[in-house]
Amino acid sequence: KKKPTLGKTNTYSNRGMTLEDDINHSNAYYLDRGVAVIHKKPTPVQIVDVHYPKRSAAVIKEAYFKQASTTDYNGVFNGHYIDFEAKETKNKTSFPLQNFHDHQITHMKQVLSQKGICFVLLRFSLTDEVFLVDAKQLIHCYENQEERKSIPKKDIQSYGHKISLGLTPRLDYLSIVQKIYLT
Amino acid sequence: KKKPTLGKTNTYSNRGMTLEDDINHSNAYYLDRGVAVIHKKPTPVQIVDVHYPKRSAAVIKEAYFKQASTTDYNGVFNGHYIDFEAKETKNKTSFPLQNFHDHQITHMKQVLSQKGICFVLLRFSLTDEVFLVDAKQLIHCYENQEERKSIPKKDIQSYGHKISLGLTPRLDYLSIVQKIYLT
Ligand SMILES: [Mg+2]
Ligand SMILES: [Mg+2]
Repeated sequence: KKKPTLGKTNTYSNRGMTLEDDINHSNAYYLDRGVAVIHKKPTPVQIVDVHYPKRSAAVIKEAYFKQASTTDYNGVFNGHYIDFEAKETKNKTSFPLQNFHDHQITHMKQVLSQKGICFVLLRFSLTDEVFLVDAKQLIHCYENQEERKSIPKKDIQSYGHKISLGLTPRLDYLSIVQKIYLT
Repeated sequence: KKKPTLGKTNTYSNRGMTLEDDINHSNAYYLDRGVAVIHKKPTPVQIVDVHYPKRSAAVIKEAYFKQASTTDYNGVFNGHYIDFEAKETKNKTSFPLQNFHDHQITHMKQVLSQKGICFVLLRFSLTDEVFLVDAKQLIHCYENQEERKSIPKKDIQSYGHKISLGLTPRLDYLSIVQKIYLT
């Protein structure tokens, strides 16, 4: 978890909120209002050793983080399957592609081939900007990267969709989904 | 994990396969053939203590199992959102409802209200029988349980859909989904 940065202007990062915090908050809002059912998947963990003390809960004594084989979030929005990954960068002018793994890209292709709605939410932390980029576009960049290994911010600004930050929900990404995929 | 039971006839349980094994196997088949993208969600774990040894992977030293707030499986099948829970019983004549938690029932209602396809796969281990029961039916039973706290098997036979066991996929539940929800 990130700690809040003090002593700066009241930017997004200074609120101490990660992109995931904002998405989870928005998903809770959507769930509560009956807008959509979208959850973050639990962190995949390889459990090696579990103790079963008498009269109390099982304790996992040894486990390791596993690489996720899919994306962070999925769910249903008015009958439509929604699937996305959320990533942040502290870079100013480009989004590094090494943030994505082959498994995740493969998963996105599979979702697209099943006619799911699939995208990424990319945040430039230093400027408080969040963009929705369609999975097809990301896959194209990922598969055609050469030396660069990142997407220039100006490209993201051109084909991505900027999501305005609000209070409730903090990050109303579904209004963008509605507009670009379902209208 | 269940161990194989030896010395009996070659039944489902004797293969040493749990219902989850069979579903995971079927999902891998569906994924490979481009039929659907359905994954089991990772087991939710509350991580309390992590060590970061030099030059090797982070080790989780203390963690606890959390109760799942949703169902075990979800994904997309030809544009349709699919969501289900899998449960087994060793009972012969009824399926105990204490296998389900309030959270899971709430989640199923939320999915239905978003027009997702939602059901449970119920296995009677001793007789190798697996039934698909629609979430609406399960919710009805769950909310109207009195003393009984279980669903009689004859009811499951009457409104459930028996899934035949095969080799590949072992449990072709999507052919039933296609038939009852999408035809
Ligand atoms: Mg992420
Ligand atoms: Mg289960």
